[in-house]
Parts: sequence; C-alpha cells; structure tokens
Amino acid sequence: MSGNSFGTLFCVTSFGESHGPAYGGVVDGCPPGLALSDEDLQKELDRRKPGTSRHVTQRKESDKVEILSGLYEGKTTGTAIGFLIRNEDARSKDYSAIAEKFRPGHADYTYLQKYGLRDARGGGRASARETVIRVAAGAIARKWLKERYGVEIRGYLAQIGSIKLGFKGWGDVTKNAFFSPDDSKTKEIEQFMDSLREAGDSCGARVNVVAEKVPVGWGEPVYGRLDADIAAAMMSINAVKGVEIGAGFAAIEQKGSEHGDEMTPSGFVSNNNGGVLGGISTGQALAVSIALKPTSSIRLPRRTIDSRGQATTIETKGRHDPCVGIRATPIAEAMLACVLMDHALRHRAQCGDVIPPVKL
Amino acid sequence: MSGNSFGTLFCVTSFGESHGPAYGGVVDGCPPGLALSDEDLQKELDRRKPGTSRHVTQRKESDKVEILSGLYEGKTTGTAIGFLIRNEDARSKDYSAIAEKFRPGHADYTYLQKYGLRDARGGGRASARETVIRVAAGAIARKWLKERYGVEIRGYLAQIGSIKLGFKGWGDVTKNAFFSPDDSKTKEIEQFMDSLREAGDSCGARVNVVAEKVPVGWGEPVYGRLDADIAAAMMSINAVKGVEIGAGFAAIEQKGSEHGDEMTPSGFVSNNNGGVLGGISTGQALAVSIALKPTSSIRLPRRTIDSRGQATTIETKGRHDPCVGIRATPIAEAMLACVLMDHALRHRAQCGDVIPPVKL
Amino acid sequence: MSGNSFGTLFCVTSFGESHGPAYGGVVDGCPPGLALSDEDLQKELDRRKPGTSRHVTQRKESDKVEILSGLYEGKTTGTAIGFLIRNEDARSKDYSAIAEKFRPGHADYTYLQKYGLRDARGGGRASARETVIRVAAGAIARKWLKERYGVEIRGYLAQIGSIKLGFKGWGDVTKNAFFSPDDSKTKEIEQFMDSLREAGDSCGARVNVVAEKVPVGWGEPVYGRLDADIAAAMMSINAVKGVEIGAGFAAIEQKGSEHGDEMTPSGFVSNNNGGVLGGISTGQALAVSIALKPTSSIRLPRRTIDSRGQATTIETKGRHDPCVGIRATPIAEAMLACVLMDHALRHRAQCGDVIPPVKL
Amino acid sequence: MSGNSFGTLFCVTSFGESHGPAYGGVVDGCPPGLALSDEDLQKELDRRKPGTSRHVTQRKESDKVEILSGLYEGKTTGTAIGFLIRNEDARSKDYSAIAEKFRPGHADYTYLQKYGLRDARGGGRASARETVIRVAAGAIARKWLKERYGVEIRGYLAQIGSIKLGFKGWGDVTKNAFFSPDDSKTKEIEQFMDSLREAGDSCGARVNVVAEKVPVGWGEPVYGRLDADIAAAMMSINAVKGVEIGAGFAAIEQKGSEHGDEMTPSGFVSNNNGGVLGGISTGQALAVSIALKPTSSIRLPRRTIDSRGQATTIETKGRHDPCVGIRATPIAEAMLACVLMDHALRHRAQCGDVIPPVKL
Repeated sequence: MSGNSFGTLFCVTSFGESHGPAYGGVVDGCPPGLALSDEDLQKELDRRKPGTSRHVTQRKESDKVEILSGLYEGKTTGTAIGFLIRNEDARSKDYSAIAEKFRPGHADYTYLQKYGLRDARGGGRASARETVIRVAAGAIARKWLKERYGVEIRGYLAQIGSIKLGFKGWGDVTKNAFFSPDDSKTKEIEQFMDSLREAGDSCGARVNVVAEKVPVGWGEPVYGRLDADIAAAMMSINAVKGVEIGAGFAAIEQKGSEHGDEMTPSGFVSNNNGGVLGGISTGQALAVSIALKPTSSIRLPRRTIDSRGQATTIETKGRHDPCVGIRATPIAEAMLACVLMDHALRHRAQCGDVIPPVKL
Repeated sequence: MSGNSFGTLFCVTSFGESHGPAYGGVVDGCPPGLALSDEDLQKELDRRKPGTSRHVTQRKESDKVEILSGLYEGKTTGTAIGFLIRNEDARSKDYSAIAEKFRPGHADYTYLQKYGLRDARGGGRASARETVIRVAAGAIARKWLKERYGVEIRGYLAQIGSIKLGFKGWGDVTKNAFFSPDDSKTKEIEQFMDSLREAGDSCGARVNVVAEKVPVGWGEPVYGRLDADIAAAMMSINAVKGVEIGAGFAAIEQKGSEHGDEMTPSGFVSNNNGGVLGGISTGQALAVSIALKPTSSIRLPRRTIDSRGQATTIETKGRHDPCVGIRATPIAEAMLACVLMDHALRHRAQCGDVIPPVKL
Repeated sequence: MSGNSFGTLFCVTSFGESHGPAYGGVVDGCPPGLALSDEDLQKELDRRKPGTSRHVTQRKESDKVEILSGLYEGKTTGTAIGFLIRNEDARSKDYSAIAEKFRPGHADYTYLQKYGLRDARGGGRASARETVIRVAAGAIARKWLKERYGVEIRGYLAQIGSIKLGFKGWGDVTKNAFFSPDDSKTKEIEQFMDSLREAGDSCGARVNVVAEKVPVGWGEPVYGRLDADIAAAMMSINAVKGVEIGAGFAAIEQKGSEHGDEMTPSGFVSNNNGGVLGGISTGQALAVSIALKPTSSIRLPRRTIDSRGQATTIETKGRHDPCVGIRATPIAEAMLACVLMDHALRHRAQCGDVIPPVKL
Repeated sequence: MSGNSFGTLFCVTSFGESHGPAYGGVVDGCPPGLALSDEDLQKELDRRKPGTSRHVTQRKESDKVEILSGLYEGKTTGTAIGFLIRNEDARSKDYSAIAEKFRPGHADYTYLQKYGLRDARGGGRASARETVIRVAAGAIARKWLKERYGVEIRGYLAQIGSIKLGFKGWGDVTKNAFFSPDDSKTKEIEQFMDSLREAGDSCGARVNVVAEKVPVGWGEPVYGRLDADIAAAMMSINAVKGVEIGAGFAAIEQKGSEHGDEMTPSGFVSNNNGGVLGGISTGQALAVSIALKPTSSIRLPRRTIDSRGQATTIETKGRHDPCVGIRATPIAEAMLACVLMDHALRHRAQCGDVIPPVKL
C-alpha cells in the first residue's frame, strides 16, 4: 500500500491536486447494505467548504461530490465506492509569482527535492484542499458507525491563537463559523481574525474531537493500537504538529494515583486515558486533541531561496485561510471516523465470537 | 498485516508475553551486506535493561538476545532476521492477587473485554517488557542508517514529573541512569523518585528524540507522511499519550511569521517544523517529543472492580518502574530508527533516480 | 489494503461497475519524471476495446480515458495518478430478464450470497469490463519498465477451444483480431467463432505472456516471490482458472536432469523455469501461461435457480464475447507489467546498493 | 509487509535457514479462545517430516515445535503466536563442494545475484525446509476452520512422474508414505523411486487439495479474490510451477454449455469452477491442483558455472528428496488452510451482518 491510501479493511485512497481537474477518492471495504447517497457526503463537505465566512479563503468551490460506483438502488453493494469532486475555481496565475520560490513553512521545498519536480499551482498535492477526500470518506464511516453502533463523533475548535475556547455545549458549536464551543467568544475571534488579515499574518489552533458510544474492545495491540492509528491519521492532516489522547501532555505532571482512572460497578470514574487503554478502546468517550500550525502562505514578506538556491524574499498573495484550524474540525472528525470504522471491522474479524465478560 | 507487525518495507514483527518463555522478533526487509551481530542488538538492549538503578523495576533480566536467522558470516543476507530473548525472572505468583481485578490505568480490563480471556501474569502482552523487541529491531535500523546515510539518532529525558530538564549536552545524557541531559539535576531526580517510591505512587515524563543528518526527501504524502508514521510508532509505545513534531502544541500560539522557518542559501534559519514539511523530511534535525503517563501499577490503594463487575480496591505489589519514562529513551530512539529506515527504503524505491535539484 | 487494490509499492486501486456511470483507477507509487499522457493509456485500452470485430461483444464503448491527477507539464509528479473511463453504452434493460436468476458459471450467485444484495446490471462489479483499469494501469508500468530497464512485455493467444496456435512470430500477432501468433490460422478461428455464435455457445482459451529483458534479482522470497505475485495477478483476471510459469504442468513428467536449466558462461541453456528460480527473476525471459474458461453468458438454455431458490432455466441474450480469451492478451500483459514494476521498486528499495557479482 | 509474511488478517511470518540454529514463525490475528497446544502443530509437522521412508531425504530432524507465546491456560489469547523449530541435523560440510557453483534449477544463482551474497549451506533460506513454518501455521488455521465452520482440508498425490494416481478414497491416502489416493499403486511408485535414486535423477509431481464445507461468500473481488490468494500461496511453495482451480487448464477446451455449472434447488450439479465464482467461494468443495517440478539437487553431472562465471560441472551429493512432491501434500493443505482462514476473517469483517438470501 503506497502513501495515498490508508486503512487496513476500511481503506481510503485519494488523488488530485489543487489546480488539476478534480479530486477523487475510493473507499474500499465498506459493508454492504448501508443506505448512502451523494447527499450524505455533501452535507459533511459543506461543513468544511471554503468561502462560508470572510475569515477563510475566498476561493469559490461548491465541492459538489459525485459517487461513481459501489451503490445499487441507494445502498452500498460492498464493492469499491469511487467518488469525484471537480475543481471549479482554480486560478493558476495566482501562483506564477511563487512557482520558483519556496514559501517558509510550506512543502514547496520538500516536494521539489523529493520528486525532482513539483506542481507549483496552489501547492499541488500538498494543498489542504486534499482534505475534501477525507471528509467525504469520513462521511461514509460516520454514517455506518452511527447506524451500526450508535457512535457519535463531534469536534470543536478549542483554541485559536491565544484565545482558549472552553466547552459550553455542542449547541454552541453550530452557531458560528469557527466550530467554537463557546459562542460568546465569537466576536473576539472575529476581531482577532480581522487583525491577522490586516497584518497579513496567520495563526495556529487546537481542535478537539470526541467519539462517544465507541464499544469496548477496538484496537490491535501492540503496533496496531487504536491510539497509534489515530495519531497517524491526525498527524497526516495538513498543518498538524501534535496529537494527544486523553490527558495527553498533561499526563507528564500527573501522579499515577491521579491519572489512572478508577472503576466502579457503574464504570470509569474519570477519563484521563481518553478512552484507550493498552491500545484498546475502553468504552468511554474517545478524546483526541490536535495542534495545527499557522498557515504558511502569508502576505508578510519573508526570507527564502529560489529553486536555484539563491536568496530572495516572498510574499504570498493567493487566497488562503489565515488559520487552517477554522475548517479543520470536520476534517479531524472524518479522520477519526475512518480509523474507528477500520478498527470496528478489524475487531469483529478477529473477535467476532467474543462476548465481553464484564457487564458494566 | 495484523497488529503485531509494523513497517511497509522494513517490517518488524513481535511476539511474547511478560511471563511466557520468551520474547521474539522478526525484522524483514533489511538490505543485505550489513555487518551485524548479537552484540549490536545487545548494546542497545542493555541501555533499556531493568535493574540498572534502584529507581526502576528490580526484576532481574539479562535480556540476552540470540539472532537465529538472516546472517551469514557476520553479514545480513537480505532474508528475515529472527531473534529471541528468553524471560528469566518471571514470578507469576506476584500477580495472583491481581488476576481477578483491573488495575486503574492498565490494560487489564480492555484486554479481557476484547479477547474474552487474558494472560494476567505481569500484564501479559500489555507488559512494557515487549519493548525489548522494538529496541532490538531499532538497533538494526540505527546501524544501517548510520552506515548508509550518517543518520544519528539520540534521545533524552526532557521532564520527569514537574522537573524540567534543559538540554545541556549529549555528554550529560550518558552520565546518569535517567538519560537526563542536565546531570546537575540528577540528585533532584533521585530524591523525587525516592519520595515517589515511599509514597507508593508514580509519575509521568517527557522524552525527546532527535535524528540528525536525515536526508531531504523521506516520507510519502499524503497519508504515508513521515510524521504520521512517526506519530503512530511513538503512540504505540506503552504509556505514551501525546506526540509532537517540532514546535508541536506551541505552534497553536505562534504566528505564521514566527512559525514558518525562513530559508537562506545556507539552509533553514530555524526548525519549528521539526524536520518535516508536507510529510517529507527537510534535511534538518528531526525533532520528536512524547508524553508518557505515570505507571499504572502503584502501591497506593485504588478503587476498581473485579472480573465479575463487583466493586473492590487494589494495591499493586509487583516490581514496577515508578516512572516508565526513565527507560523510555532507548525505546523512542528505536521506534524512530525503524520508521526512518522504512522510509529510507520506500524513498529510494520510488525516487531512486531523483537527484534533488537544490543544493544547500 | 482491501480487495480492490493490489501491489505493495506500485499500487493499483480500481472501482466501477459495468452499468454505472464510470470506471476509475488510481495508480500510486509511480516514480516521478516519467513522460505520460492520456494517449499512452489510450493506445493500450484500444487494444482490448470491444467491438473491433464481429467475434467480440458489440457493446459500443470508446473507452476514452481521462487522467485527472499526478501529472504536471506532461510528466508524472510522484503523486497518485487518478484516471476515469466513462461508460457510454450501458443498456440495463438487457439484463432485466436475468436479474432474478443466476447464470451458471457466473458470479451472480456468489455476489448475492456474499453481500446480501447485488447490482445485476451487466454483472455489476463482476463484469470483465473492469479490466479497463488493469490495462490503463499496466500501460504506465509498461512504459516505465521499458524506459528504465528495456523490459518488453508481449502476449498472444496460444489456444482457442481446441485450436492450438503455434508461435510464428510477433509480427503475426498484430495481423489479426485474436492476437494469434499464427496468422495462417485466422480463417480457421473465424469459422470456429461463427459456428459457436450460431450455436449460442462459448469456448475457453489459453494466453501466453512473455517479458523479456527483466533483470536478474526481482522477487521477494519466500512469500513475496515474483511467481507467487504473478500467479495472484493472473488468477485475479476474470475467467482465469489456471496459471503456469515456464514448463508449468509439463514439469510433472520431466526428470530433474531434463528440467533444471543448465548454465554456461553465456547464460542459461534452456528456460524450463520460465525466468524465475526461488521466486527471483533469473534474467531470462519471464514466461507465463494462463487458462481462461468459456464465457458464462450463453444463449443456450441452462438449468438454474432464481433468487428464491426455485428451479428455472436461463438463456442469456445480452452482448457478450463468445470467448473472453480473445481480448485477454492485453489484460494479461498489463497484469504482468504491474507486478514486475512493483517488484522492480521493491528490489531497489532493499537491494539498491547490490551489484550482482556474476557477470553473464 | 515484506516478503516473509503473508495474509491480511491471519498473518504468517517466517524466518530461518536450512543450516542455521532454528526456524521460527509468528501467526498473528488468530481469534482468541481456540484450544491449542504444541501437539496440534506437531501432528501436522510429523506428516511432512523427513526420513519417514527411504524415498525421501535421510536428514534426521524431529521437527519438534515449541510454542513461545499467544497461549494462556491452553487457549489462544488473540495475541501473536510465536513458535520455534530447532535444526538438529545440519551438516554444513555436505555443501562445501557446491558453495561456489550454481545447481541448475536451484535458487543458488538468483539469491547470489539479488543479494550480492548467499548462505550456501543447504540452500539457506531457499531450502524447502522452510515449509515447516507453513505446516505449523496451517495447523492453527486448520483447527480453527474445522471447529468454527466444519471445514475439512485434505490433499493427495495425484501424479508422480508419469504415474497417474486416480482417487480411490481418503482411506488410501493414509496407507502409504506418498499420500497416494490409490494404494494399489504404491509398489509401482516405490519401484519408480528406487530406479530414480539409482539413476541419480529426480521427478515432478502433481498434488491435489480439496477443502470441503467452505461456506459461500469468502473472497474479496476484484484483486483479493479467493482464487487469486490461493494461487499466490500455492505458487510460493518451493518447486511449484503451476496452479489450477477446478477444471483448470481443461477449461480451455470446454464449451460454455459444458463448463458453467448448472444449479438446481439442491445446489450445483457439477464443479468445474472448483468452488469459486467471481473470486468468491460458492459453498462447493474448493478444488486446487498444483504442479511441482523435479528436485534440482541430483547426482547426475550437469553443466553449470561457478561464482566467477567460469564453466564447470556439478553433481549434488547431499541428502535430498528425489521428488519434492512426496512430502508436498501437507504443505499444500497448510497453505490452503491459511488462505481460507484469512478470508474467513476478512469476510466476517465486511459482511458480518449479511445473511445469505438464498437457502440451498
């Protein structure tokens, strides 16, 4: 399996570039009999769509998805589900000025050095626009997990720049364009984004994702641990520089007597472990947190080199999100959904005959 | 590929339980012609060996490794390298008291619920003793990477409990039993560990690993990114709850103008990205940081349930590390070595004819 | 990796159904810098295209391919190559009569029983039309193998029904619509096909494929043997029931003194092994032979059951090839090309530093 | 996954050389709760053990297996099952004479050219002795398949040299040292083998394997077809040059009206397809046939070259089977068992909720 596929049984393959004709994806291994339509994918794609507020890229993409295979009379057949999303608003000329320079913090340089050539239009394959495929694939996983096991996967923006957003409730998350769980801070975020945009700069963010009602038992220790696969999936999202499960880095300063979640006949008393112990889901909420770096493409001039290795400066004038974290929530949810579905299938393959002995 | 193997081309398979007769590993895909002996593996194993100070488990294991295949006249033949490490000091009776209870923070409960039965002796497969296989496999990767590309992989304890350990130099790391990079704080650590042991409690830790001289170009976007595979490898280590690359979670509060590493004809000016951009190595030092939770097996009494779901309390009296982070440095180094070697091979498979166009 | 992908490093993923909107494929892992265009794929697709003579299905498909990603300025970029082939002449009503019955020898029954539902239009996913994806992917592999190593992959129809076709030369193969290597027998084949069509019956065939100039050393024993992967690739082609390498089944009656290919300083004296020893290419011509069963969809009435398990009879009136072997040559070539390319990459990953010691 | 592992969910990894200290294997992905002991593996190993008659190699190996992990109180725990078989009768001096020459038909040459060096003792990794691992792994698969689904896997010698052995009954197979299904021909075989041995020559063989009571629905089209994976597994066995499913090569001369197996409410009327349609098991007996080439190591002098490329002759005097087919039956059974088990798990992963609609 090469680099553009992931998943052992629920396997997602992705192709496409920012300024090519289309992005496409293949979801293989989906169980048959799931009711599915373009609309199921579209509604998730619309959640990450650009242009929904003045705080994200103004590129106009309807992100209209077309499912090309794997369905019959509205149900999955168990064969590969191929789908396509055409690019509509690719303005390659925007990029001519930077084709010969490397944007600091961007993959321009590494792609060129790895492959010997690169598609410089809009970041080519490295564009965050690739995440449409993840969101579409995740929509399938999410639907199946919900119908089959009742699993609920939701995320929110937990921090943007230095603004921390405490969790006020899932209701708040849908009230603003930032997936902020504290809608009372929306104005503050908007002002911060406006100031960033004026300054021609960008900022980082933290996104939290939670999966509830995940059954106990998913994950394949010792290398195919559920948390290991989640870590890979999250770190594979553009701009992600850190992943935590449960207490995460806070566990460093915890004592064992504080961190280890006690149990009673009604279940776990706390959830420092974030729903995974020994690489296997505990049945608690699965809690993941990721750090996204600030957007690399900024208007402020920066020192760099050109493809001949000569010193120069660069100012990126294209249409970019000043904070990639704003639209990252549906992406992180989608990646978590894909990993969970893969492990749901892997678990019932090996342990399909097991009845968990302890009833909580 | 099931859960006890990892790596696409440099593939590591592991088996064994804490109180079974032996641990064993298979390294498949190693290039032929590498000079290799038991001693190469042994010297890394000795770095993580238990019993080296009073601050780690007093279990007596020589961790003597025997290579069983894949060598001919002292060189790798390109065939699978199998090796074995016998368990010597397994005292299963230590565990009889806890066989029917679940240690908070441990995998006891999830293993039982997933598989319907569990090997309760010393954590069975969930024991951190499994990491001997990672260290042995990593020794092979490390040697090849060093000889073939000059890659240098080193790690250190960056924090233990609330004691932060600034990096004073690699020389310090070898001067104490904690892999502390600031040997002047060794006494402080020892006192802290003594107090923990007396209290019957445990603590968490942070370990940093750095790989230097990694060539530009390793990593397979968009899902097989170098950092994604590193994240999985690190998160698969027992007790790890968080992974960062480069600036990691600090990137949240950085501006784009601060985070994006500028370039000059002599290379990158900074390394916020930790040696990876777009999932591909930049040629800079690869910088990874992990959070390890406190040891779950502690002497302090804790609330839990038994395998019939009844409330009870538990005190763990076996021989355990009060901080698993103390011996985690060689393990994290080994995992990084395995991932890098896998990607070195994957890169030359696809891009073996590419000459990186930019000379820095 | 699920069932609709194959290859470890040169990885092909396929989706699409006979009467859906399109077939699509993704080729991942292709080295960068290969000059490639739609035309390179099209010319191979045209070799398997239906409707080229009265002896194959009269379904009218231009099989026009569109590459959607992975190219920049006419060269592969090293990223995933996605491509699409729209279905143009899908007449689903042709199949309404058989939607509720199982054609003997067809996958109707097994698809329904496995997945619980099936796309009955034209065989759905089981249609031999899926082989367009193999041919398109194979065109990429073939081009790279030729340019990089000089590998030449060619095949021919060696037998159709009971008509055996001796190899007269590659020139003959291109002179007729059957890929027959003895063009003097073309009339005989045509008469046989006419009689079959009149009778409403079908026949089997044998196709041979040869790859020349394959370097010594490709293949990964003991399970990833070159011949094992070839066997899987060939057996995965619709209607294939047998695979031989070299002497194949004739080896049963050979003596060791006859079968084992002697060597002289100018190379091997014979090629009973078909270019593979111990799962590794020898540097000789790689010789593969496959058996294709007769087409299942025939006009003659046959006993079968319907989806309620009731006895009935069936006559298949759609547009079908009376011998799937007629168009199988480009398909078998393509599969061989894909496997060889995958192993070319795998070999240089592991053994990129090896210089074969013996010069022949 | 590198070349010494196979299987997606039921994954077998193998290591060891003919004259190294031991062979070892790891079976990963086995469901928990299966009663298993060394004895289960041993009884299958004893069926392929050398030295059981004068017609096979006289090397004395007890092939004593030791399971090292994955069991607890006599049951599989769901973790990796590691096992070891020590070599006891390795006489490396037997091979010194041939270390610098290439045996015609053997992998000596290809291993050296691929890897740049080779373990010349007894064929090293290319020795057929590696098949102990397959047989041991197959014993686990076979046991689970039998207990869980009632699957019965049996094989026999169908031809040796030019002696064809008609199937008289499973009872005959156990009455002789050749797995011949027609015990009345045992004397004829023995005389043939004696004459071969006297002549210093060897011969080929055909082995048939049949799996009964395989449920309908196993296999993952279009590339992960059950028959494709079986073909790979069989072709990966040392000396195999051909694989057939069902009618196999005989299908070439069949008409569609003859080949396509008709159905009635009581099931299929015939089994030309060998239990697989469209890559999915039909519920009928799964019928596989393989061709094994004659042993390469023979006493008759043959032309070859040495490792400097110089012409020479070679006579192989070690202890070798004059027909590798004699002991191949348990090996082929084991490979079939492993593939079936892998697909049993894969099927219930994806289609675990499907109830096959047609009751036969």
